Amino acid sequence: MEDINLHFTGDFHAVTSAHNMITALLDNYLYQNQASGFGLREVLWKRVLDVNDRSLRNVVTGLGGRSNGIPRESGFDITPASEIMAILCLAKDLEDLRRRIENILLGFTYEGQPFTVKDLGVAGAITVLLKNAVHPNLVQTTENTLAIVHGGPFANIAHGCNSILATKMAMTFADYVVTEAGFGADLGAEKFFNIKCRKAGIQPCLTVIVATAQALKIHGVAELENITRPDKESLVKGLKNLQKHLDNMNAFGQRVVVAFNKYASDTEEEIALVEEFCRQVGSGFAVNSAFTDGGEGAVSLAETVAEFIERQPSGPLTFTYRDEDPIPEKIAAVACKLYGAAEVTYSMAARKKLKLIREMGIGHYPACIAKTQYSFSTDPKCYGCAEGFKVHIKDLVINNGAEMIVAVAGDIMRMPGLPKSPQAERIDLVNGLIEGLS
Amino acid sequence: MEDINLHFTGDFHAVTSAHNMITALLDNYLYQNQASGFGLREVLWKRVLDVNDRSLRNVVTGLGGRSNGIPRESGFDITPASEIMAILCLAKDLEDLRRRIENILLGFTYEGQPFTVKDLGVAGAITVLLKNAVHPNLVQTTENTLAIVHGGPFANIAHGCNSILATKMAMTFADYVVTEAGFGADLGAEKFFNIKCRKAGIQPCLTVIVATAQALKIHGVAELENITRPDKESLVKGLKNLQKHLDNMNAFGQRVVVAFNKYASDTEEEIALVEEFCRQVGSGFAVNSAFTDGGEGAVSLAETVAEFIERQPSGPLTFTYRDEDPIPEKIAAVACKLYGAAEVTYSMAARKKLKLIREMGIGHYPACIAKTQYSFSTDPKCYGCAEGFKVHIKDLVINNGAEMIVAVAGDIMRMPGLPKSPQAERIDLVNGLIEGLS
Amino acid sequence: MEDINLHFTGDFHAVTSAHNMITALLDNYLYQNQASGFGLREVLWKRVLDVNDRSLRNVVTGLGGRSNGIPRESGFDITPASEIMAILCLAKDLEDLRRRIENILLGFTYEGQPFTVKDLGVAGAITVLLKNAVHPNLVQTTENTLAIVHGGPFANIAHGCNSILATKMAMTFADYVVTEAGFGADLGAEKFFNIKCRKAGIQPCLTVIVATAQALKIHGVAELENITRPDKESLVKGLKNLQKHLDNMNAFGQRVVVAFNKYASDTEEEIALVEEFCRQVGSGFAVNSAFTDGGEGAVSLAETVAEFIERQPSGPLTFTYRDEDPIPEKIAAVACKLYGAAEVTYSMAARKKLKLIREMGIGHYPACIAKTQYSFSTDPKCYGCAEGFKVHIKDLVINNGAEMIVAVAGDIMRMPGLPKSPQAERIDLVNGLIEGLS
Amino acid sequence: MEDINLHFTGDFHAVTSAHNMITALLDNYLYQNQASGFGLREVLWKRVLDVNDRSLRNVVTGLGGRSNGIPRESGFDITPASEIMAILCLAKDLEDLRRRIENILLGFTYEGQPFTVKDLGVAGAITVLLKNAVHPNLVQTTENTLAIVHGGPFANIAHGCNSILATKMAMTFADYVVTEAGFGADLGAEKFFNIKCRKAGIQPCLTVIVATAQALKIHGVAELENITRPDKESLVKGLKNLQKHLDNMNAFGQRVVVAFNKYASDTEEEIALVEEFCRQVGSGFAVNSAFTDGGEGAVSLAETVAEFIERQPSGPLTFTYRDEDPIPEKIAAVACKLYGAAEVTYSMAARKKLKLIREMGIGHYPACIAKTQYSFSTDPKCYGCAEGFKVHIKDLVINNGAEMIVAVAGDIMRMPGLPKSPQAERIDLVNGLIEGLS
Repeated sequence: MEDINLHFTGDFHAVTSAHNMITALLDNYLYQNQASGFGLREVLWKRVLDVNDRSLRNVVTGLGGRSNGIPRESGFDITPASEIMAILCLAKDLEDLRRRIENILLGFTYEGQPFTVKDLGVAGAITVLLKNAVHPNLVQTTENTLAIVHGGPFANIAHGCNSILATKMAMTFADYVVTEAGFGADLGAEKFFNIKCRKAGIQPCLTVIVATAQALKIHGVAELENITRPDKESLVKGLKNLQKHLDNMNAFGQRVVVAFNKYASDTEEEIALVEEFCRQVGSGFAVNSAFTDGGEGAVSLAETVAEFIERQPSGPLTFTYRDEDPIPEKIAAVACKLYGAAEVTYSMAARKKLKLIREMGIGHYPACIAKTQYSFSTDPKCYGCAEGFKVHIKDLVINNGAEMIVAVAGDIMRMPGLPKSPQAERIDLVNGLIEGLS
Repeated sequence: MEDINLHFTGDFHAVTSAHNMITALLDNYLYQNQASGFGLREVLWKRVLDVNDRSLRNVVTGLGGRSNGIPRESGFDITPASEIMAILCLAKDLEDLRRRIENILLGFTYEGQPFTVKDLGVAGAITVLLKNAVHPNLVQTTENTLAIVHGGPFANIAHGCNSILATKMAMTFADYVVTEAGFGADLGAEKFFNIKCRKAGIQPCLTVIVATAQALKIHGVAELENITRPDKESLVKGLKNLQKHLDNMNAFGQRVVVAFNKYASDTEEEIALVEEFCRQVGSGFAVNSAFTDGGEGAVSLAETVAEFIERQPSGPLTFTYRDEDPIPEKIAAVACKLYGAAEVTYSMAARKKLKLIREMGIGHYPACIAKTQYSFSTDPKCYGCAEGFKVHIKDLVINNGAEMIVAVAGDIMRMPGLPKSPQAERIDLVNGLIEGLS
Repeated sequence: MEDINLHFTGDFHAVTSAHNMITALLDNYLYQNQASGFGLREVLWKRVLDVNDRSLRNVVTGLGGRSNGIPRESGFDITPASEIMAILCLAKDLEDLRRRIENILLGFTYEGQPFTVKDLGVAGAITVLLKNAVHPNLVQTTENTLAIVHGGPFANIAHGCNSILATKMAMTFADYVVTEAGFGADLGAEKFFNIKCRKAGIQPCLTVIVATAQALKIHGVAELENITRPDKESLVKGLKNLQKHLDNMNAFGQRVVVAFNKYASDTEEEIALVEEFCRQVGSGFAVNSAFTDGGEGAVSLAETVAEFIERQPSGPLTFTYRDEDPIPEKIAAVACKLYGAAEVTYSMAARKKLKLIREMGIGHYPACIAKTQYSFSTDPKCYGCAEGFKVHIKDLVINNGAEMIVAVAGDIMRMPGLPKSPQAERIDLVNGLIEGLS
Repeated sequence: MEDINLHFTGDFHAVTSAHNMITALLDNYLYQNQASGFGLREVLWKRVLDVNDRSLRNVVTGLGGRSNGIPRESGFDITPASEIMAILCLAKDLEDLRRRIENILLGFTYEGQPFTVKDLGVAGAITVLLKNAVHPNLVQTTENTLAIVHGGPFANIAHGCNSILATKMAMTFADYVVTEAGFGADLGAEKFFNIKCRKAGIQPCLTVIVATAQALKIHGVAELENITRPDKESLVKGLKNLQKHLDNMNAFGQRVVVAFNKYASDTEEEIALVEEFCRQVGSGFAVNSAFTDGGEGAVSLAETVAEFIERQPSGPLTFTYRDEDPIPEKIAAVACKLYGAAEVTYSMAARKKLKLIREMGIGHYPACIAKTQYSFSTDPKCYGCAEGFKVHIKDLVINNGAEMIVAVAGDIMRMPGLPKSPQAERIDLVNGLIEGLS
């Protein structure tokens, strides 16, 4: 666990290096060619670092006089938001990886032409930096079950699924492959279906939605300090959140089993309530206590899942939008059908990007919406099942190599900040063992 | 070779992460406490990235309004110049690593007090990030000889030697341990003796200086395009450069063997000339053709080295300066005795740092001079054996954790830039094999 | 004319000095108090210069290390957009000027309290800088008619009328006082009525709207190169623009005389068309050729105006909104009733300011909308009588001293830029006479 | 007095406008031509404001995306340091003014060619902005004596004398013309002789040096709080400062009268001491009490001056350096002969400018040294008659229009900052009268 959370096999570092190497090469190109008018009217490509650092969101680089580059407004995203990470996760093979790297859009020339990594002439070198990172990483659980860990986008700020290569590799090894697509089914599952499955041609047999009594109570608007106490009223109110997620999964054509993650504070009555709710809406239900009981605690869940699939696997996926829908229709489809929004609005910056997308003829890419994971809406404090809200698209990021359009909704940040009391103050190495890493 | 040049075991990435994590935590501390007046009058700590990117030398961070941090002038060095890298290479063990991390000087409070990582309260978390990087990496040559690769400072911008732990570990395994301290003996060897050996208590038995006919001709002021042609005159002129290096090594009390790296274009007459010169000045000499002939080609060199050591190993090291000498005297000692400078001048910024060093009572740290590797002087185009020049100290960097003072001399940059035609344009992955990586 | 267009009596310079002096004092306050936590969470006050300079719209100041201030994001507006200019034009007397200067909102403390010039303690010094500028300037026309020139806001970016003091002074000297409130009656007249007349208690007897055949043709969507040719069709189409202005003036309760500014290219037929239109809608009409014929050319217009007023002056003003309406209602009233908009939208930044305005309890201030003068809409290329458009409020500027809220609509810039071929390239001094100043 | 200290006839505002108009036109030129490679490798021209604002010393302009200019590092000087101010004071007539404006060096092209206002094509427009400012301003003293006030450089940061036109105009009206060249004779008088008199061909008949007992005591190293008490010892010690000024004036070939500015706290004994000293060194002496007694109080001084001149006027001026001396020799001549320095050192930036000056062939311009007025040295706290110090030239500013090279020595700032408690806190308008303006 520690190794995976720390540097692991270095894939994140490789993505960071590859991303920033492109930026360095681009800035060098602009610097070396400034006298010849080969510059870019606009640079879209930024830098990444795998650290929560709000101070890096907006920076001016190239200061200090003419031997130190050309002053330019830029910024850093967190590494999981890197288009390189998305490419790594969506590439079919090394050749496809290279093709996608070539296609990365860096900016526009003064004549308004797209300028890509291919134009910069360095796709080969960047592919070299990623040649090992493209291989899925084999790990094992504490009970020695095989697991494949590969790729690191977060579904709130990026497409959020592990790599297609890892999933396909796993599918050659096992009868059942479980893949995580987390941060809320409105974020993770939506992108898993509409982006990853669409691109990889995967048809999942079943969706498991994880629920906890505590989260349901939060969505039933209980006070945070009370969620470990018995509170049927809040729990029942919170079920409308689960209901919306189940409806959404069904809209994809997916059958669903609810995995109820059991905590010590959960009462039998509460568990029974959720189970009854699931039966009524036609979803499966199983209690999962793997966190405390190990693999043994997940047997019931596994059996329920297997039973559901054997009885009747889900049919073909019904996507929320079609490839040929324009980007605003795609975003509206996800926002209105799945989130429950009434309307999607766009900033001036986003509208300019929509124009560029039309001009570049890349409106057929899927839309990858970056949004808070705490609410169906863009307001992290709007619990339950929000309705009738507006989704404001602050910016669109063209991922021409990953072949998707990232839509940044509400106040979500692609570079997080640290809290007042960061976890780092509590992490330590004591007698060679790490403490405080949660 | 490829792996070592690319991501290897991730030590560089770990150093980068640890360094930038401190910066993120520091900026967060300033951000969260801005209303309480707990700020810093001056921040000395920057960020690092392992990429040649001149645009990152001077940046303004924290832009974009008050939710995106506090605007601040800062910059990036290349990862090998990170104080974390120096600490990793100089730490005796994990405990010492942690102690040094605690001591890193981040800046000064409004009251003029030093503010360290300890004050920030995150030394434990940073140590955790380095807990694997601190272990030396075991590799083997293509002839399966054991080698330990650990630590990455460059001797032109940092102290430049591999880690004390790696060297000491090697000394427990082998009769002879060869360690590289490169980038010119005025840079690498000087720091190896005055910093690493001083701190680690190591007494090397012998120094090997590598010479080539081509480099000697360059120092004899031959044109670059002619150095593969026979040119005794330039070669002989260039020997004064080798002479100065030999004198310097002798001043440390070291006996020296010159390893003549043989190229196809070298004539017997030229080789004989260098050999004769070495004999006259009392140094050993051996031709080394390991690059073309493998281990076989280095046997003669190895025998010469072993013979010299068995006959009479070098005596105890004579350091260029004493611990108790003030920093300006230490810098002057290296610059005047070893480089051949007539005078050392200081910028206003450097003079202010000298005052701080006195006030902090850390004048007993060794001086680590960052200087071009192309010349004894600070002018990269001044070949041969420069004399009577001035060394201008542009800035001093206080490495309170590494316990040394970095003096930045001349125009040397702690963040390099890329050339007009960067190597990345020629690197590629062809049929799974890397091309163009030199 | 030259003097008025150049430095004149220096009022603009005095406003510029006063504005920037406040900024310098504020930045000095922040600089001197940084160790004590007396800083501001947010600074709203910028700088001004009376020059078209897009590079000054957004700047970072205070760079260059700690003796050169605190790095801060800021910007410059053009001097006519300065709140000091608005205050100068709206102040009743020197005491009122001083009171308003005290009330200027500079920013907010970390505790969220407003921080004003009074808190900075320098209102007296700023008043001193304006003590002469507050006096109206007496000039004469080339026919020696008295005119009072005082105050310089532009109605597209500010409230746009000359000073209340100047108007009131003129009213003590003459039977008829003509005051300009230009840049389109949707901008100038609207603000003259809703802001200046409201504050000063002035009741104008009549509104004169200036029309030209060329402008009407533009609004009838003729090509720019054809507007000096006879073109009844475009002219008739363009009358709907005039119609909307007349309706708007009538909505204020104003009787209107249309002053038709005659050009050599106007045909009798075209003039007759406009006259006939005016008769039908119940407005007065007179041809004005003062530009070519001097005062003589305006006699007919003057007689028509006098006749209208003597027959029946306009009744009391009907304001577009009431003091007690919240700011968004005020903006909506102007945008929908006068401009013809369907909806008003707000950026995130503008919404945050609305919240501040409510918290400060200053919603009773009038709204001063900055908008392009080329169209009723916010799109400068949308001629004629636009309808059903959205007005997007990009930002709100709180003028707490001038006691109004500036709403920045669409892409209007409070600091203009220069065109590709600026007029300065054609201005020259030839034999002591200025050429090229148009 | 108030008017002169406030906006006066607006000359300062005209200089500010003209200077910043050039910058706006230059930035617009760079902006409009960025696609064509017509840019500048380096921009030397900054902006000015007539306010003490340390936050404007170093700024980044052109931020906010591509419609808001090109990001660029720049800065503001205070208006008296503007080259336009120097040109105004050194121009012979309007034609010469225009010629000098054309010659202003704005930066260098990518090919290394100088780029001037002439290349920008706007010299005419800038001349128009200055057409009134070039006329000297006639004022009168409270005793109705004519005075001409024109031009505002400060001798610590610029050449520091009023305009040549004003001086020459005065010389046509009066038998005796008194002109001020203040801020210490090492600054003001030096530049008056070496720059203004050299350029205008003026031969002054006599130099008056103003001395006070209090200043002499400060230079005799008395405590500031004690200088109004009788203290002969400090006074006598301080005379070495006066001695050095007298020697310097004599070196120019000037006869000198010391004007002793009398304060109430001065004792007869102290005055007698200074008088005796003057007699011994061969200078004239007169007590001046004009500040308290009006013109009457200066009669004795005037008579002494007239008597000296009638007896024997000074001979032709002996300049400190010749036109043909290279800039470093000129600076060294002033620093070593007049200030008493032992050596002049140069920063890297200054050395690069020296190279440019040689390449441009403008080494024959006089040197205008910006230096603290508190000491002969560059250390404002080094009183008396400093000796053996170094003068460090931080930067050189090429004033190609004013035809002089400004050398910035030590820590002098061409844009001052405000003190902790700025005067503005004490200035006010009380019953229409200004208070606190000292």
